[in-house]
Amino acid sequence: MTRPARPAGDLAGLVERATQGQARAIGKLITLIENDGTAVRELAALLAPYTGRAYVVGLTGPPGVGKSTMTSAIVAVMRERDARVGVLAVDPSSPFSGGALLGDRIRMQAHALDDRVHIRSMATRGHLGGLAVAVPQALRVFDAAGCDVVLVETVGVGQSEIDIVRQADTTLVLSAPGLGDAIQAAKAGILEIADIFVVNKADRPGAEIVVKDLRHMQSLGGRHSAPGAWRPPIIETVAEDGPEGRGLRQLVDTIERHGERLRTSGDLQDARGARARSEIEALAVAALRRGLASGAGQTPLAELGEEVAAGRLDPYSAADRLVAALR
Amino acid sequence: MTRPARPAGDLAGLVERATQGQARAIGKLITLIENDGTAVRELAALLAPYTGRAYVVGLTGPPGVGKSTMTSAIVAVMRERDARVGVLAVDPSSPFSGGALLGDRIRMQAHALDDRVHIRSMATRGHLGGLAVAVPQALRVFDAAGCDVVLVETVGVGQSEIDIVRQADTTLVLSAPGLGDAIQAAKAGILEIADIFVVNKADRPGAEIVVKDLRHMQSLGGRHSAPGAWRPPIIETVAEDGPEGRGLRQLVDTIERHGERLRTSGDLQDARGARARSEIEALAVAALRRGLASGAGQTPLAELGEEVAAGRLDPYSAADRLVAALR
Repeated sequence: MTRPARPAGDLAGLVERATQGQARAIGKLITLIENDGTAVRELAALLAPYTGRAYVVGLTGPPGVGKSTMTSAIVAVMRERDARVGVLAVDPSSPFSGGALLGDRIRMQAHALDDRVHIRSMATRGHLGGLAVAVPQALRVFDAAGCDVVLVETVGVGQSEIDIVRQADTTLVLSAPGLGDAIQAAKAGILEIADIFVVNKADRPGAEIVVKDLRHMQSLGGRHSAPGAWRPPIIETVAEDGPEGRGLRQLVDTIERHGERLRTSGDLQDARGARARSEIEALAVAALRRGLASGAGQTPLAELGEEVAAGRLDPYSAADRLVAALR
Repeated sequence: MTRPARPAGDLAGLVERATQGQARAIGKLITLIENDGTAVRELAALLAPYTGRAYVVGLTGPPGVGKSTMTSAIVAVMRERDARVGVLAVDPSSPFSGGALLGDRIRMQAHALDDRVHIRSMATRGHLGGLAVAVPQALRVFDAAGCDVVLVETVGVGQSEIDIVRQADTTLVLSAPGLGDAIQAAKAGILEIADIFVVNKADRPGAEIVVKDLRHMQSLGGRHSAPGAWRPPIIETVAEDGPEGRGLRQLVDTIERHGERLRTSGDLQDARGARARSEIEALAVAALRRGLASGAGQTPLAELGEEVAAGRLDPYSAADRLVAALR
């Protein structure tokens, strides 16, 4: 409910230019989402009518699997098929915004001059609600800009990365030979979120072992083991510049096939609804948390904290008093 | 507000036996905290009067620095000084409870027959609120059992580990030569939380480089750079079985000195109050979240999710409606 600092007309103009696919406007909106807690609420309202169309593909895996090259190669195949593509690269462990980094410019030079490819990286910064709030909003900017597909790429295999790729309709989990990543990935629970496994650098020794390990882990069950469920295919690739690398067109075919299946089964709508619910809930909890922190109600949190620390009150009873005061 | 499944007398008896230092009762209470969402609220109320006395020491660092051996060695020095010691080993990435694992028994065999040393490991499990709620409660069990010191040890350097050692009065961050951990640690923000740096395996080549790196990073500032602030000492150790290893008594002296300083400055009370506030807030948010999930108020979250997914509503406005319905 805070008043935005900038005049509404300015923001509306920016959104309009972004919906026309203007790269600078798209970049500015994502920078706003990263930095400007006051504008983001108004921005969300302005963007909403233009959203709900883009298909989101998530891409994750441990360092060294070739995620950037793979992203660039997938973009190349999608451009062959005339799709407008957005790329959001998220590093949850970095405090730096990618917007101003050299990395953005040297990444994916192959697409630098293509005005139907939009590339941005994003970091956490102080945004209220963090990436759980910022990532879906950034995806909506690409969506509103008319992207048919948005690739969201993260750098690792931790919980933050999992939370990010959960925003995707189809999630690719990359492995490669020689990284010991099969076990790493299993530990981080990343296998559970894969819709498609990609074994990249498949021309290197050990690729067949990675494939075998993945098959074995699939055989152990999980959410995909129900009868009729989508069983994540394992695609072997050799990503390189351009669309010609081994397995790349097959990979994009598989992404399209998965998307088609989600659409016809109604699962796409269900999953998007569930994601929106999580997002709404996260925003509601953030609002309530602000209310708690500002000492809403008559019960000062500081006093409750002292009571609990001294053992005169238990934390559950303290929480009850706090919630009662808020309601 | 759910009714506990077990009779209240049973739980009260268990708490009483734990306060007498009975190992089995202590173990059972921590198992309850891990597994039994219904008992934990009543347990908190029963434990509270016995808490607020134990001093909590956190211990973290990347794999390979020798955390288990260090924990065992610190226990040995503290036992020399006649303290009753609890050890809580937490693995936030493991779905397994440590209670039944062989690990617990082979860990720290040196103290296995000492009835004034209590050792437990703990994992996340499905506990509502996760480790943010379970760890402080488990620490209270050791506190109520009469432990003078509780060591809480975690296995890594990620955000979950940081959240766990934040529960400590004094936090030790371990490094060792040859792990490339200085940079790792800096990335994970773990340097910010250290009250004492421990360079273990200090008899190995490269130890002086680790010390130099830490000094250099300290010189770059941070929360400890204010005038008069506690500047985290860097202690070189060679942990081994028993209290005799290089630097171990010096380390425990330094922990005691830090504790003394926190006590006399009033910072201990302040920090404990702040931690209790975070805990209360986490419990309150969990309660509110349950309220949201169960569709409190008239606005069905499912419907809001569909509206947002379809672009007919923005997530902030949806969150506003949800919160309004709750209030």
